[in-house]
Amino acid sequence: MEGTIRCPANYVPLTPISFLKRAASVYGDRTSIIDGPAKFTWSETYERCLRLATALTQMGVSKGDIVAVIAPNIHATYEMHFSVPMAQAVLCIINHYYDAQTLSDVLTNVAPKFLFVDHQFLRLTQEALQTVPNPPTLVHISDPDSAKSEPESEPARADYESLVRAADSYAEFEIKYPEDECEAISLTFTSGTTATPKPVVYSHRGAYLNAIASILVNEMIPRPTYLWTVPMFHCNGWTFCWAMPAVGGTNICQRSFSAKSVFDDITRHGVTHLGGPPSLLNMLARASEEDRKPLPHRVEMMTGGGPPPPQVVLELESMGFRVLHCYGCSETYGVATLNYWRPEEWDTLPPYERACLKARHGLKHPLMEEVDVKDPMTMRSVPADGVTVGEVMLRGNNVLLGYYKDRAKSERAFEGGWFRHGDLAVKHPDGYIEMKDRKVDAIVSGGEYLSTVDIEKVLYSHPDVFEAAVVGVKDEELGQVPCAVVKLKEGKVGDAEGIIGYCKERMPEKMVPRKLVFGEIPRVGSGKLQKKGFRDMSV
Amino acid sequence: MEGTIRCPANYVPLTPISFLKRAASVYGDRTSIIDGPAKFTWSETYERCLRLATALTQMGVSKGDIVAVIAPNIHATYEMHFSVPMAQAVLCIINHYYDAQTLSDVLTNVAPKFLFVDHQFLRLTQEALQTVPNPPTLVHISDPDSAKSEPESEPARADYESLVRAADSYAEFEIKYPEDECEAISLTFTSGTTATPKPVVYSHRGAYLNAIASILVNEMIPRPTYLWTVPMFHCNGWTFCWAMPAVGGTNICQRSFSAKSVFDDITRHGVTHLGGPPSLLNMLARASEEDRKPLPHRVEMMTGGGPPPPQVVLELESMGFRVLHCYGCSETYGVATLNYWRPEEWDTLPPYERACLKARHGLKHPLMEEVDVKDPMTMRSVPADGVTVGEVMLRGNNVLLGYYKDRAKSERAFEGGWFRHGDLAVKHPDGYIEMKDRKVDAIVSGGEYLSTVDIEKVLYSHPDVFEAAVVGVKDEELGQVPCAVVKLKEGKVGDAEGIIGYCKERMPEKMVPRKLVFGEIPRVGSGKLQKKGFRDMSV
Repeated sequence: MEGTIRCPANYVPLTPISFLKRAASVYGDRTSIIDGPAKFTWSETYERCLRLATALTQMGVSKGDIVAVIAPNIHATYEMHFSVPMAQAVLCIINHYYDAQTLSDVLTNVAPKFLFVDHQFLRLTQEALQTVPNPPTLVHISDPDSAKSEPESEPARADYESLVRAADSYAEFEIKYPEDECEAISLTFTSGTTATPKPVVYSHRGAYLNAIASILVNEMIPRPTYLWTVPMFHCNGWTFCWAMPAVGGTNICQRSFSAKSVFDDITRHGVTHLGGPPSLLNMLARASEEDRKPLPHRVEMMTGGGPPPPQVVLELESMGFRVLHCYGCSETYGVATLNYWRPEEWDTLPPYERACLKARHGLKHPLMEEVDVKDPMTMRSVPADGVTVGEVMLRGNNVLLGYYKDRAKSERAFEGGWFRHGDLAVKHPDGYIEMKDRKVDAIVSGGEYLSTVDIEKVLYSHPDVFEAAVVGVKDEELGQVPCAVVKLKEGKVGDAEGIIGYCKERMPEKMVPRKLVFGEIPRVGSGKLQKKGFRDMSV
Repeated sequence: MEGTIRCPANYVPLTPISFLKRAASVYGDRTSIIDGPAKFTWSETYERCLRLATALTQMGVSKGDIVAVIAPNIHATYEMHFSVPMAQAVLCIINHYYDAQTLSDVLTNVAPKFLFVDHQFLRLTQEALQTVPNPPTLVHISDPDSAKSEPESEPARADYESLVRAADSYAEFEIKYPEDECEAISLTFTSGTTATPKPVVYSHRGAYLNAIASILVNEMIPRPTYLWTVPMFHCNGWTFCWAMPAVGGTNICQRSFSAKSVFDDITRHGVTHLGGPPSLLNMLARASEEDRKPLPHRVEMMTGGGPPPPQVVLELESMGFRVLHCYGCSETYGVATLNYWRPEEWDTLPPYERACLKARHGLKHPLMEEVDVKDPMTMRSVPADGVTVGEVMLRGNNVLLGYYKDRAKSERAFEGGWFRHGDLAVKHPDGYIEMKDRKVDAIVSGGEYLSTVDIEKVLYSHPDVFEAAVVGVKDEELGQVPCAVVKLKEGKVGDAEGIIGYCKERMPEKMVPRKLVFGEIPRVGSGKLQKKGFRDMSV
């Protein structure tokens, strides 16, 4: 428009680095991170990030270089969300549950310039690196306790804390903002429930916007205290790493957790928000009496990675949690759609019905421009009848830039101008979406589609069942038939016939599991159940 | 980065139109607007906006055209914040307090294609249009009550409601998103306290981001009820017009208001948030016993346009308001910096001290990238000593794109890569900024700078004073000396000497007003006090 000028005074590329810089001045003396005995304020966190960015630059990191890290949810991992982009590099947090072979494959593909390794994963990393053609330079993240007692003969080596401490010229360091806000800020991996993990590229713009949207949907105002139960390697902790400085919140970091530690942390630190997959919800809902503590206030629990079984939601809400069911994937910076609660209509429903409504989702996250369930062939929307199954498709600024080094895969994912998620779902008349399956998990039996999620819901409602997974197993006559793997609650004795009978009373014959085995259900690093191992089960 | 693609699936231009579209699906059945007897839901508001956008397009409005409106805070004005951009046009809301001459000048300069005029301002507009060379096409916004009784002989004319009703093809209308998010969305005028109003250009990007930031700083989660006391013509109501659908809030519109109507609306509609200049705060704090009502809950009161006198803040907070002091101007989409409260340190201070702290501001709004007080000649930051006066300068995505048709003025405003605000302020050691004057209001007396704000603070604390304005008046010896205009509380008798004596006990001799007159203090449309008429007062 005539008279206007775009210049540094009125156009600043969106990047979460701005959140941290502002937090240092607005919330400078508020607690940013509590990590065991370590405790920092936002001005300290800002200084530490500036210091590591200074060190990285001195070590030769430059624009577009990849800096990887293998570490749990500790403060170093958190800080690298800011210090690495401040040096104009791309952060790549690697799932520390990978085996050496997967880790080696991932490192070979991504080829980071530096790899920061927590002491706990040093041996695993060293094993993996033996088969990496151009191994990165290692930087250790030492155990602060054992570091003191280390033998003096240990050769000098790059260490996270020494780098931070030594970077005394940090005050002169000039933060390198992206020139274009769509430049990459991080690589994160698909969770690998269905295939080998693929590196997904996030931008500064997407990270900034998604962080703000996460604050809005989780009502993280004012000053949340966030407990880190979602792994930071998973969608950068659903982008909460970047969101917290925007509201001056406090991060409660932890190397690992249990039901007991979660209840303890909620009480000790006044945790207001946490998140995790349905397996975390299940763990808390079914914690033993000794492990539990009454909640000191309402705690917001964000869940994703699969619809939470209504029974579990019910149990958690009676304890004082409020469950927000979100839906998304690594490709959508975590959350893409959510279950917006309608208190006027739903608060008065019977508890189980309420919990069933919670298991739906599909209303747009504030950043998601469009969400639909479409026929993947015709690209037409399915009718909003609660029955017709289609594929979930999305468009918005929180959709990945693409798959790293795999343009063909990126093109397929964006075909038709929508991101094709690969999940099967129905649309209800009120616009809510109910997920029925990952495309790859779907069971087609006698030419008819059966929802594993619907079968699992019934299994979870059985009083003896702790956890359940339904898979399609090959069948000569019908193509596939449903079978179930069930983990029982402690002290319960397996009664497969009894449970199958329970199912028969509650679902059409064709959906009843043909076979039911008892055992542990493995999980991928993000906590989702890993079904692929069970598909070759025989009926 | 290798493998990535920018495409419609992952890049959507930021525009507040997306908020409305999402509100229609997520908050569809929630109340969007209450305007007297009229009441709408978000899906109705969305439909009405689509209808007007359809009508505008049919009338020949196309990309970049300016559509102006002269109307108070009614639902039509609100809706045009979305319908006009949906037709790819630029919205220009004109201050309805202008006299015919100013209005004529503004219309000649802006040259809108269409002008929507509320029935209340029709005569004024017709007078103004007589001297406009290329007058726009008029569209009436009729009074729904009198419309029915209109004589049938009245010639057919374009009318807002008829356009909305007639646009039956709206379902096929395709919303026209900006191609570039930095395209103009609106023209808004500087408030004109210091000069002729200048049209300032806002972008879709700035509107989107500032709306979100406003939600964050005002803690408008979940579901606020916002009372429209800030005029929509002023910075598009500090961008709250665009913010409300992002959180599914409710707008309480009103043609005009008084202390009584504000207290009534708070009780009747459960208002949670409102805003206005210090004169609004003063009106509420000093409302008569009959006009007041006890607040049903805490009400968030955002104020800007000048530091609120501590005495007034004190009175409001004792009534149950919580005052957030913000600072900004038309050029920064309203709010640029704010007073972030530090409960741990400040809650326990004596009330008057607390109120003085509220009068400071200067901590960055979440969208503001940098804020500083600088020497305008050297561009060096002033020391954070609470004493050295400099000019407030800002950088961020909520800084105007420029002044419409006045590139030279835009260039001057952005000189040195910062937006030069023209306000004089000091920086405190804790980073907070305290405004001392508009540059043009500053008094230089005997070569020394005197803050009119500091003198007014003392006047407001006098028990007889309702409102006060201090101006610099020419003086042969000292250049300028301070003089005061004071409006007394009802029933009080003017005692100029007594008030001057009160000042003498509370400020250095050089700051004491030489002369004090009693009278009304005129305001500009946004509610700020208009000082320029008093400068030729004789001592």
